[in-house]
Amino acid sequence: MNLAASPSAEQPSLPPHARALPTITARQRVLAVGLIGPGRVGSALLEQLRTAQPRLARSGLELKLCGVAASRRMWLDADDPELNGRHDSAQTWRPSDLDEFAAHVRGNDGRHALLIDCSASDAVASRYADWLAAGLHVVTPNKLAGSGPMRRLQAIRSACGVGTRFRYEATVCAGLPVVQTLRDLLDTGDDLLAVEGMFSGTLAWLCHRYDGSRPFSALVREAHALGYTEPDPRDDLSGLDVARKLVILAREAGWSLSLEEVDVESLVPPELATLSADAVMEHLEYLDAPMAARLAKARAQSGVLRHVASLDAHGHASVRLAVLPAAHPFAHTRLTDNIVQFTTHRYRENPMLVQGPGAGPEVTAAGVFADLLRIAEGLEVRA
Amino acid sequence: MNLAASPSAEQPSLPPHARALPTITARQRVLAVGLIGPGRVGSALLEQLRTAQPRLARSGLELKLCGVAASRRMWLDADDPELNGRHDSAQTWRPSDLDEFAAHVRGNDGRHALLIDCSASDAVASRYADWLAAGLHVVTPNKLAGSGPMRRLQAIRSACGVGTRFRYEATVCAGLPVVQTLRDLLDTGDDLLAVEGMFSGTLAWLCHRYDGSRPFSALVREAHALGYTEPDPRDDLSGLDVARKLVILAREAGWSLSLEEVDVESLVPPELATLSADAVMEHLEYLDAPMAARLAKARAQSGVLRHVASLDAHGHASVRLAVLPAAHPFAHTRLTDNIVQFTTHRYRENPMLVQGPGAGPEVTAAGVFADLLRIAEGLEVRA
Ligand SMILES: NC(=O)c1ccc[n+]([C@@H]2O[C@H](COP(=O)([O-])OP(=O)(O)OC[C@H]3O[C@@H](n4cnc5c(N)ncnc54)[C@H](OP(=O)(O)O)[C@@H]3O)[C@@H](O)[C@H]2O)c1
Ligand SMILES: NC(=O)c1ccc[n+]([C@@H]2O[C@H](COP(=O)([O-])OP(=O)(O)OC[C@H]3O[C@@H](n4cnc5c(N)ncnc54)[C@H](OP(=O)(O)O)[C@@H]3O)[C@@H](O)[C@H]2O)c1
Repeated sequence: MNLAASPSAEQPSLPPHARALPTITARQRVLAVGLIGPGRVGSALLEQLRTAQPRLARSGLELKLCGVAASRRMWLDADDPELNGRHDSAQTWRPSDLDEFAAHVRGNDGRHALLIDCSASDAVASRYADWLAAGLHVVTPNKLAGSGPMRRLQAIRSACGVGTRFRYEATVCAGLPVVQTLRDLLDTGDDLLAVEGMFSGTLAWLCHRYDGSRPFSALVREAHALGYTEPDPRDDLSGLDVARKLVILAREAGWSLSLEEVDVESLVPPELATLSADAVMEHLEYLDAPMAARLAKARAQSGVLRHVASLDAHGHASVRLAVLPAAHPFAHTRLTDNIVQFTTHRYRENPMLVQGPGAGPEVTAAGVFADLLRIAEGLEVRA
Repeated sequence: MNLAASPSAEQPSLPPHARALPTITARQRVLAVGLIGPGRVGSALLEQLRTAQPRLARSGLELKLCGVAASRRMWLDADDPELNGRHDSAQTWRPSDLDEFAAHVRGNDGRHALLIDCSASDAVASRYADWLAAGLHVVTPNKLAGSGPMRRLQAIRSACGVGTRFRYEATVCAGLPVVQTLRDLLDTGDDLLAVEGMFSGTLAWLCHRYDGSRPFSALVREAHALGYTEPDPRDDLSGLDVARKLVILAREAGWSLSLEEVDVESLVPPELATLSADAVMEHLEYLDAPMAARLAKARAQSGVLRHVASLDAHGHASVRLAVLPAAHPFAHTRLTDNIVQFTTHRYRENPMLVQGPGAGPEVTAAGVFADLLRIAEGLEVRA
């Protein structure tokens, strides 16, 4: 991890103050960090953390990057060739062992410690509760804990009772302020009436571009070539990933919604559903007739087609292709933008909107980083 | 303040965990709060805090509302008729004294304490640095500290070095997540390239409605009658309040911009500027010819007129009536909405947008409340 120890930050000098009340002295905080999943998001995050280290140190936070774990190997800051030699070659890594990894990051010197899960692994999500209970904060863009079994999420939440925190802003629309915004609305006593959004940049792009001049399949091919879709575009068209985000928001709002309860309209026609991943790109035309029919229907209503996720005040959740009036804010987003609209008691007449790119390694990593900083902020205050 | 002491919250039971690492025990935190300025926003906030108290107590935070101070009177939770009798009648208030008020809220039992300034008073803003240095957190929707003399703001910032925090989310667009969003972008290492926004619901409404079918003055009269404008509409039309918000954002981004340095185009014509407040409403027609000329010019460019605040990557700030293309996101906001657009290195191609109502006692109070919660969150973590 060769990260030079951050120099002790200089504290700003205290202004003279006329009051007799005693003052509190500032201090340097140390936060040990371990990253699981150095993939696209994880690598971008490591880069962001490294760049920020000197600046954070000046503001009184020393980030100690203690290790990185991938699915089969892990690197600890204590790694040395000799130790690694026993496992494999002279490379400074050892076989991945998340127990050992967590214990290493936590240390035994009473420091603050935080694990970042940038994998998409369910096995990793299954460890959060233990880590939290053991005093490690957890931050992640991985949607599996938030949208997976409710029991597991409940265990995670209970484990936070010990003073550790679990944050997952980047699971919904990456770096856009969505989860925290909803949390603030609710925590300040507002009532949620509806959440609506476009949570897939890919589907937003496809809907925006689809004007009937080219078959829908041609647009999917173009999006695939541009790297906008998953390797298998059915993963986008199924709406499952969007449904996961909606589940996360619903649970944030207090409903114990499960993924199965979301009314998801898949855009994958039956003819495509059963094909092998390799064959899909060759048979995208199956999409064309049903999509052309949807577009014609939208036009007959003078509306536009948009892929919309929505949650109502009763916790009913749906993900579907909707016909929206041309003046609707979702009709005007920039091509690949995500958008979220919160309708609440206080924002009833004019809802609150957050919009922008909702994916990409850098903005996702920044969402994770912001969560880390939110936790680090808390470390500042005297106990 | 007759707020019953909150019942000690029940802690969720800890899940069994297989790890040998020791666990941290949870605890109840107490936060003493004093409110300065029980006006529109302050009253809405008191109501929100009172309603939230039992819920917060269950989550481990006991909010102790210790006092309220207006410009001439203050109420302390220790107030009793006897004590007050010495000052005035048998009413439970005493003459306002902010020193005494702060010392009372801070207490001397080592508890966490926070002052909320919901006044628009410069005198109150001048006390923040002392309070912060003395260990009291400060939260406010009052724009005067953030947009006033840079020296004072620097003293406030230095005073936070002792571990207390100064938060002011509601100074820009009330309850919309704007200041924190900018903070997160910068703190995670992003580079700000531009901020653009419509920070006045009144001016947004006027620009949206102004299509030439009615003179601009008629719309100002209508807005005045609807309560959308300040009592003297020149306070909106001057752009000063918008410029203050821009100064706050510029300083957040690290520029020591002063209000005088903002290039503000006032919509108040010279003929109106010198009138007494009473006479203004009778002479609004002075607005009509210049505004009609602006509208004609916008139309000649097939654009729309919008009141836009902007800040570029060099810290140059302006507030003006701009001609925007009809496809610009600012052309499509809902009537009185505020909107903010952040263009950064990471959000360069598609900027990030936050939109919604940016004024009103309830949403402003909620913005202040969210700041309070952000500080309270920090109290949770062990030191
Ligand atoms: N990319 C985005 O724009 C975006 C946006 C929002 C949210 N997210 C979420 O962010 C997460 C990461 O996305 P990504 O695009 O960075 O994925 P990625 O490039 O596929 O990286 C995944 C990383 O996780 C590691 N990993 C997998 N299983 C593991 C295990 N059991 N233990 C430790 N490490 C394991 C992988 O290591 P190996 O290489 O050794 O398998 C790899 O380093 C996902 O949950 C994704 O849903 C991504
Ligand atoms: N209203 C909004 O939509 C909105 C939106 C964003 C930000 N804000 C900001 O929020 C703040 C409050 O706005 P508001 O609409 O609630 O104003 P308001 O109704 O005029 O209330 C102001 C309050 O401040 C008190 N006050 C004035 N000077 C004081 C002093 N020296 N010491 C103690 N208290 C003092 C007043 O008490 P007295 O009655 O005794 O004078 C009154 O209770 C302002 O800074 C405003 O700019 C408001």
